Amino acid sequence: MSKSLPSRSENYSEWYNELVKRADLAENSAVRGCMIIKPYGYSIWEKMQRALDDMFKETGHTNAYFPLFIPKSFLSKEASHVEGFAKECAVVTHYRLKNDPNGGGVIVDPDAKLEEELIVRPTSETVIWSTYKNWIQSYRDLPLLINQWANVVRWEMRTRLFLRTAEFLWQEGHTAHATKQEAIEETEQMLEVYADFAENFMAMPVVKGIKTANERFAGADETYCIEALMQDGKALQAGTSHFLGQNFAKAFDVKFLSKENQLDYVWGTSWGVSTRLMGALIMAHSDDQGLVLPPKLAPIQVVIVPIYKGEDQLNAIKEKVNPLVKSLRKQGVSVKFDVSENQSPGFKFAEYELKGVPIRLAIGNRDMENGTIELARRDTREKTSMAFEGIEQVVVDTLTDIQEKIYAKALAFRTENTHVVNTWDEFNAKLDAGGFVSAHWDGTSETEDKIKDLTKATIRCIPLDAKEEAGQCILTGNPSNKRVMFARAY
Amino acid sequence: MSKSLPSRSENYSEWYNELVKRADLAENSAVRGCMIIKPYGYSIWEKMQRALDDMFKETGHTNAYFPLFIPKSFLSKEASHVEGFAKECAVVTHYRLKNDPNGGGVIVDPDAKLEEELIVRPTSETVIWSTYKNWIQSYRDLPLLINQWANVVRWEMRTRLFLRTAEFLWQEGHTAHATKQEAIEETEQMLEVYADFAENFMAMPVVKGIKTANERFAGADETYCIEALMQDGKALQAGTSHFLGQNFAKAFDVKFLSKENQLDYVWGTSWGVSTRLMGALIMAHSDDQGLVLPPKLAPIQVVIVPIYKGEDQLNAIKEKVNPLVKSLRKQGVSVKFDVSENQSPGFKFAEYELKGVPIRLAIGNRDMENGTIELARRDTREKTSMAFEGIEQVVVDTLTDIQEKIYAKALAFRTENTHVVNTWDEFNAKLDAGGFVSAHWDGTSETEDKIKDLTKATIRCIPLDAKEEAGQCILTGNPSNKRVMFARAY
Repeated sequence: MSKSLPSRSENYSEWYNELVKRADLAENSAVRGCMIIKPYGYSIWEKMQRALDDMFKETGHTNAYFPLFIPKSFLSKEASHVEGFAKECAVVTHYRLKNDPNGGGVIVDPDAKLEEELIVRPTSETVIWSTYKNWIQSYRDLPLLINQWANVVRWEMRTRLFLRTAEFLWQEGHTAHATKQEAIEETEQMLEVYADFAENFMAMPVVKGIKTANERFAGADETYCIEALMQDGKALQAGTSHFLGQNFAKAFDVKFLSKENQLDYVWGTSWGVSTRLMGALIMAHSDDQGLVLPPKLAPIQVVIVPIYKGEDQLNAIKEKVNPLVKSLRKQGVSVKFDVSENQSPGFKFAEYELKGVPIRLAIGNRDMENGTIELARRDTREKTSMAFEGIEQVVVDTLTDIQEKIYAKALAFRTENTHVVNTWDEFNAKLDAGGFVSAHWDGTSETEDKIKDLTKATIRCIPLDAKEEAGQCILTGNPSNKRVMFARAY
Repeated sequence: MSKSLPSRSENYSEWYNELVKRADLAENSAVRGCMIIKPYGYSIWEKMQRALDDMFKETGHTNAYFPLFIPKSFLSKEASHVEGFAKECAVVTHYRLKNDPNGGGVIVDPDAKLEEELIVRPTSETVIWSTYKNWIQSYRDLPLLINQWANVVRWEMRTRLFLRTAEFLWQEGHTAHATKQEAIEETEQMLEVYADFAENFMAMPVVKGIKTANERFAGADETYCIEALMQDGKALQAGTSHFLGQNFAKAFDVKFLSKENQLDYVWGTSWGVSTRLMGALIMAHSDDQGLVLPPKLAPIQVVIVPIYKGEDQLNAIKEKVNPLVKSLRKQGVSVKFDVSENQSPGFKFAEYELKGVPIRLAIGNRDMENGTIELARRDTREKTSMAFEGIEQVVVDTLTDIQEKIYAKALAFRTENTHVVNTWDEFNAKLDAGGFVSAHWDGTSETEDKIKDLTKATIRCIPLDAKEEAGQCILTGNPSNKRVMFARAY
């Protein structure tokens, strides 16, 4: 607490790592690449979950739960899927430990080898589609609209808290449809849900788009995504929604009898967001003093700190503040009235600033005499002395205002850092400056790979709102009819 | 749907299995012992989670998340703990698959062997206490009151949906305290929370007690439990709360500096309930027609089925019923107005009966003429024609009444099936008849084992409210000063 954070301009990466630890969001565990999500971090994730879950249910989805383990043979059934995930799988091979007869402590029991190895799910398409085969016979069983909240494991070699971890928490929607059109609509609907959540809860503007073939989900016909811009000018993929075509239906032989009495393969989608969103949330808004949280996702929206000498002053403040606390809570505002005595007001101020509490109210003896209270906004760090009378409405309005302002700020940042370029030199200059770079590309994977090799930038997406526009590929000069969005990315 | 369930008296076990499948609660997956929790089953589990989570938070706990994987060496640090769990561990040994160069498809890559094997958590004491070591330095860091919602894996050889599965969902609370007394109070408080939940949400009476040394959690000094009685006369352990003493603090060297500036080991507790509660809920109340759900946990509390011929009649019914639906929902009642046209009212009646919807309202043409509506209670299967006017309040009151009545019914069943016995013959006769058998026991593990071998009955618990009473052990005749509760159990 005494040492201040590294600044963003000094060392952005170090700033992020330190902030995640000091704000009690997460830390590394003894297991390589697996994180511990600490209570404060988890309470933000819970708010995200609740909001997303409500949105999924409003769009007709229900939750279910499928096994953690996937038989190795299942993973192999969809060719590009296994290609995409085989390199980073945690594999269970045995089901028992025993005492080493040679005194080597507890060892894996060689007699307890599984007949078929099990993969800890990296994603659940295979185990879910193998189940859907039994659940779907006719068009009457469709659409099937299911979501799962779960942990998944991808054995990443380089990990970073929230952004890339071997185990992470996520939700994965898996839907089945009678027609291609309906499946595409579902894919697009869920992209809209994600964009809505990112913008209206996380206060984080996103570009909606389609991935190139190179960046597509292993087993999808089309991957839609939302891409956000972080304060260091790098892009972050915040959510994906996949149109799976009939790929998994074919791999697992899932057919249905249509209204017209025809047997056909089912159409599928899958879509997910993960604890990676925590990383995005942190990097989108926070500053050198600590977290900045949008009020809609802040576990504590308002903290009230009394400044007093002696029991009598504290009691007088309590008497005045308790009704305010009660009535704010009645309105659904989450308030902490911090009367703890071990820490000084200054210490508390720094602590709640670090933790991103949107509004801090402070009230001392002079305020009591004058009928005032001090309101500090976390986003702008402005402090204002105000009349205590009427403060409740000010707090409610300020929460709304903060939610809007931090979105507006992030949007202005993105606008400033989105560059339209037409030459290779400009392209490189803008990539080095940071941000999204909108440029023409000739549509080949070969060129995409070459650009990546040369610049470390990837095509984040082909924006859904990209206009038809004749141009020349930034690298090859070959014709292009649309700009795509490049960036260096997390 | 057309075939009726096996009856409980005919084949209780088959009745349970069929009910779980037909009511869309769960099914077996392709992975041995791992279940799929289907949407309807999961929606009941979600209601349980929400209620429990609220209770945990009201008692000062916060949620966090710890890794799925536990290094083998961690599990071994607490001697009795590893003894208890080593025999049923899923072990991860590799982190990659690859294509077999000899054409054998996808195989485990022998070059990707982990240096140390990882265990899929069977419970998280070890990984959590290894973390607490870093979180706890002084009495100021205590108590630490953390809960986790997670999946765990215990490689059971004989599995049954919900009751015993290789993977299950649960919550596990892990708390750390400065004093023994405080840790014991926490252990007891959480037992009370579980008992409160079982009785007031699940409508399932429970006996609160302490486990004998034989049945204690591996690593605990004392295990508290709640035990419920199922309709076939078998007991089911529904939740446990463990006083861990300083065992895990010692295993992971977790010390704190007390107010008196003394360095001492921390005191711990852990407590959990799992998806096993779903099995308990099903078996506690359901009948030969299907599920009977307590209104507080029913995903659909009221279903309204229209009985009509032609569009006009349906429209008239809709016009009358829609305001009722709206106003019930406003009161927080979850209502389904089933206007689907593919199925007959009779089919719908059977379906909602199978799924345990507490109240069914049916309204037809004659009701429309007479200003009536038919109300059917799932618990008693009584049908009553009532005035439509005022039905809203009747529904609300009936939901409360059903919640109370099914608890009362389960309590009466348990009272009838709890037997106090004093001789070995009586003991055996009552065990065969089914139910709890209250008897004297000499307090030795040896006698307990012998009784288990002879009768298959175990000591479910030493009830917390057991009175001091001189007596003789049912088997050995040795002196005893308290009765304990025996039963055959799930």
